[in-house]
Amino acid sequence: MGFFPAPVENLVAQFAKLPGVGRKSAARLAFHVLGWSESEVGAFAEALYEAKRGTCLCKVCHNLSADGLCAVCSSGTRDKGIVCVVAEPRDAAAVERAREYKGVYHVLHGVISPGASKSPDDLKINELLARVDAGGIREVILATNPDTEGDTTALYIARLLRPFGVVVTRLAHGIPMGGHLEFADEVTLMRALEGRRSM
Amino acid sequence: MGFFPAPVENLVAQFAKLPGVGRKSAARLAFHVLGWSESEVGAFAEALYEAKRGTCLCKVCHNLSADGLCAVCSSGTRDKGIVCVVAEPRDAAAVERAREYKGVYHVLHGVISPGASKSPDDLKINELLARVDAGGIREVILATNPDTEGDTTALYIARLLRPFGVVVTRLAHGIPMGGHLEFADEVTLMRALEGRRSM
Repeated sequence: MGFFPAPVENLVAQFAKLPGVGRKSAARLAFHVLGWSESEVGAFAEALYEAKRGTCLCKVCHNLSADGLCAVCSSGTRDKGIVCVVAEPRDAAAVERAREYKGVYHVLHGVISPGASKSPDDLKINELLARVDAGGIREVILATNPDTEGDTTALYIARLLRPFGVVVTRLAHGIPMGGHLEFADEVTLMRALEGRRSM
Repeated sequence: MGFFPAPVENLVAQFAKLPGVGRKSAARLAFHVLGWSESEVGAFAEALYEAKRGTCLCKVCHNLSADGLCAVCSSGTRDKGIVCVVAEPRDAAAVERAREYKGVYHVLHGVISPGASKSPDDLKINELLARVDAGGIREVILATNPDTEGDTTALYIARLLRPFGVVVTRLAHGIPMGGHLEFADEVTLMRALEGRRSM
């Protein structure tokens, strides 16, 4: 394009790097931000710096943390005997939102994916095995997404955990609450049938 | 929420300030950015600062500009006798993309809108009248959007321009190229009928 001054074009290009943001959306976001006051724009820029600089990974569960130990791992009320294994920090946040889970987490930072060339060594799998090996863990819940890569990763980890003698579970799959049978895809229906429970 | 460290929550909140970005999308964007290297995040933050600090409004047309005079106004090949009046810089960019227009622009920075409490004084309307009053302008094309506020603004400006004796035009409205009659809304069809041309 080059119609706008270089700094504006550059900002549009930066916004266009975000997932799901095309060239037109990026321009819309950039112009919106240009309408902010200098201090508001500064707050955004600082937030970017701070989020990157001010966070590290929890040395136990590898979730995002302000310190060496995250809020869940340093809590005295969480059950350290149950570990919920998720692909990404946002997945742990999703489980947390259900307000049901009282155990701790382990964040893999990805799933095994030939497409994104993520091998098991790129994930925090060895760190999980070391945690289980250290003792005190009764159950590992594999809560990767129910897609090909998530299932592959869960199977892979389940096999590695077998020698440790811990209970290994997977989140239940089925019709989502409030969902309709007629709109459920075949795989979900198949999983729902497989996982049927007596009532 | 508060599940994530404060700097991450803050970044999510900043992304959620952007138009069309809800809380979930904001979290997705924030986590994506956290996956970038520190220099990539720095480039984004700098782009924000630079776009805000490194741009001003062209003193003639009020479009975004790196200097006092924008690229269009300082060009020797553009016809300064035709002024295309648009609501926002992005609208000027859209007209420019058509590669047809050889005149110059005037950016109002908004439209008359009771909802957003934008009165005519908040727009660059007096600046437009001063440009026309200074002479040399043969035609003013009112290219605000064909919605209630855009039409109101165009009518308001057209009335103010009457005493100056310049030709005042409005962009043609009608069925978009490649569009289907059956999918056109009634107002568009009405405008298309009103604006019918002999062939």
